[in-house]
Amino acid sequence: MISRQLGAEFIGTLILLATVVGSGIMAETLADGNIALALLCNALPTGGILYVLIMGLGPLSGAHFNPAVTLIFVLRGEIGVRPAILYVVVQIAGAVLGVWLAHVMFDQSVIQISQKMRAGPAQFAAEMVATFGLVFTILTVLRANAAAIPAAVGLYIMAAYWFTASTSFANPAVTIGRTLTDTFAGIYPANAPAFIVAQIIGAVLAYLVCRWLLKPSGEPRA
Amino acid sequence: MISRQLGAEFIGTLILLATVVGSGIMAETLADGNIALALLCNALPTGGILYVLIMGLGPLSGAHFNPAVTLIFVLRGEIGVRPAILYVVVQIAGAVLGVWLAHVMFDQSVIQISQKMRAGPAQFAAEMVATFGLVFTILTVLRANAAAIPAAVGLYIMAAYWFTASTSFANPAVTIGRTLTDTFAGIYPANAPAFIVAQIIGAVLAYLVCRWLLKPSGEPRA
Amino acid sequence: MISRQLGAEFIGTLILLATVVGSGIMAETLADGNIALALLCNALPTGGILYVLIMGLGPLSGAHFNPAVTLIFVLRGEIGVRPAILYVVVQIAGAVLGVWLAHVMFDQSVIQISQKMRAGPAQFAAEMVATFGLVFTILTVLRANAAAIPAAVGLYIMAAYWFTASTSFANPAVTIGRTLTDTFAGIYPANAPAFIVAQIIGAVLAYLVCRWLLKPSGEPRA
Amino acid sequence: MISRQLGAEFIGTLILLATVVGSGIMAETLADGNIALALLCNALPTGGILYVLIMGLGPLSGAHFNPAVTLIFVLRGEIGVRPAILYVVVQIAGAVLGVWLAHVMFDQSVIQISQKMRAGPAQFAAEMVATFGLVFTILTVLRANAAAIPAAVGLYIMAAYWFTASTSFANPAVTIGRTLTDTFAGIYPANAPAFIVAQIIGAVLAYLVCRWLLKPSGEPRA
Repeated sequence: MISRQLGAEFIGTLILLATVVGSGIMAETLADGNIALALLCNALPTGGILYVLIMGLGPLSGAHFNPAVTLIFVLRGEIGVRPAILYVVVQIAGAVLGVWLAHVMFDQSVIQISQKMRAGPAQFAAEMVATFGLVFTILTVLRANAAAIPAAVGLYIMAAYWFTASTSFANPAVTIGRTLTDTFAGIYPANAPAFIVAQIIGAVLAYLVCRWLLKPSGEPRA
Repeated sequence: MISRQLGAEFIGTLILLATVVGSGIMAETLADGNIALALLCNALPTGGILYVLIMGLGPLSGAHFNPAVTLIFVLRGEIGVRPAILYVVVQIAGAVLGVWLAHVMFDQSVIQISQKMRAGPAQFAAEMVATFGLVFTILTVLRANAAAIPAAVGLYIMAAYWFTASTSFANPAVTIGRTLTDTFAGIYPANAPAFIVAQIIGAVLAYLVCRWLLKPSGEPRA
Repeated sequence: MISRQLGAEFIGTLILLATVVGSGIMAETLADGNIALALLCNALPTGGILYVLIMGLGPLSGAHFNPAVTLIFVLRGEIGVRPAILYVVVQIAGAVLGVWLAHVMFDQSVIQISQKMRAGPAQFAAEMVATFGLVFTILTVLRANAAAIPAAVGLYIMAAYWFTASTSFANPAVTIGRTLTDTFAGIYPANAPAFIVAQIIGAVLAYLVCRWLLKPSGEPRA
Repeated sequence: MISRQLGAEFIGTLILLATVVGSGIMAETLADGNIALALLCNALPTGGILYVLIMGLGPLSGAHFNPAVTLIFVLRGEIGVRPAILYVVVQIAGAVLGVWLAHVMFDQSVIQISQKMRAGPAQFAAEMVATFGLVFTILTVLRANAAAIPAAVGLYIMAAYWFTASTSFANPAVTIGRTLTDTFAGIYPANAPAFIVAQIIGAVLAYLVCRWLLKPSGEPRA
């Protein structure tokens, strides 16, 4: 079964990154300099594809597509350390392939390195908040109504594109993938480690908050 | 249990305000002077995050995030006066913290006071209508299909950004929070009391209309 | 019970028109001459509010808000002629009041007459198609999955704003209401009768097509 | 029963194409040269109408509206070759009629031939990816939660408008229909065969990947 789980994580992360980077290229090319419009046409497809991928692949692999999410499920004891490491490896591989696929579809050099600076304490705080919010969304909705996870995660990320100053990467595999594109969605490689640290801090904080907030107390639940 | 309910109201209102104010800053900064586009990029994230927060926190606290909504549930006898007062206190605290968090993420001074005038009888009428509509949405959908509340409230607020002249604050805690940001979503503090009065009137009117409209009459219900 | 049904039709149509006209005013005012953006900011709120109103009021009155829809349910024998006439009366009254409410909220003269010409065979065809599509949506989805009606009608109207040349009035009460506003959503009163005739033809055509398409044939249905 | 299935495929594909082409005309006309905005106002209605049509017509015909999808269900043994050929014939007929209906509604010459070049290896790759993604969406979601197919397909196509360089035709009948309109959504007829080949390759690849990925393994499924 594990190979199919890894397949699901690989293809899902690949399509996610192809969408993030591809729609970023399309949107920026067509938006005629209006960055708000470009970001909108990047955010809506990303939210939409998350709904699709989580709905379709959730029963197979849990549809993490995100090392920070996999880490949280390790902390919750729902996935072992060994399979978790394999998850992270294929997530990163899928992310890189997805970026390259976007480049192929848009007739660009496959190999690129981003020059877009995304740094500073505000960006760090933004990524912490973004990933806190993502894990908070997943854990609260999982408890309240697991069937709503695909819509909740899709809408959360669509919103977080706008309310976090970093446009919400919220995902170490996505961050690594996005260092490899010198287009709208890119991030300068040297800025990536701080993003990833902020993401892990935000994810763990959300895990701790939810452990308190969602502690079972025997009452029945809708 | 009450401390976790208050925690849910606090975090929910905090994330809501971080989204309203944060996406307002991002949208206005990027929209290059096109206010309709900025408002769209403020309305969609707000609607989206409401879906997420109500879905995830509804089973914990009812997901009010709004003193006007808490008031209505007091009138309906579903929450006592004492817990209701605590709800309102943490909603306001969460709102203020959420605004400050948005400022941190966007590298702005944390402490601000809005200079944006929002006054006059049309604005008053708009807030009355906005909050009437919100409570009307909650009470009718709660009766018809409680599981649809997250989507209904999110879509209602997204729509009300546009069809009310005030862009639909519809929430006293949100109104107080928004006095503390001199950005897109702000409101001049001296204009806030009239907004809050209008919101309470609108909410109570909706409660009265729904008491008549939704009176049980024994018939089965889909 | 009938008085509450009429109340639901009245309030629903009122809020619908306040949304159509109010969001039209807001969108046009802010869109800085970009009509596509204005129409988008008119279409999304209209679709959203339809979801909300149909979800909340469907179990009370059927949530027609539309004389053409009421006519179809008369043809299907699901509502009598007398209550249907009352439905149409309160739908029109609600539509007029909703337009006036939008004017109040946006600080405009309450009484207006539209000067916006919408005429010619292409507009006639567009309204026929728009209303055909609306009734086709309602009857097919009612049969396939009645719980999806609110989302289906909301999304249909959002789409029909764009794919019909008339921006899809698809509703005689809405058409009458929109003669009374000289803003983005208006229609010159002398053009309204042709719109209404086209709407009725389109609705009846859809009814006839669906009578054939959806004829029960004994097989179980998902 | 087959005649009603064919009727559903015919009307569904007709309305789909009227939406794709009609909203393209409306969007381009109003967008004042901003192509990103035009594409957004083309993508959202297309996604919306797919939700509506698949929800309403799914139980009747499966709601393929797409020869590539019909082909996959032939490969899966869920539809015979003879009915499949009839499906494809009425899909193409519906597509052509839908384009012509859009022209009538927008007061254009009914008969047109597109001059819009869409060619080259990047476009070919994009159509392969687009159709791979569509079939992958259908097969994974069908297995995970068949009731979510309408939302998943609608959101997938909305996203794929942006993340594929071809704006995601992903459908041979749509491709043929779009050769017949010299408007926003058109494609030069000589470019259509390569699109269709790419679509079939992408669809079959997704079928093969899903055959491995979704192989039943006896475990219970949420």
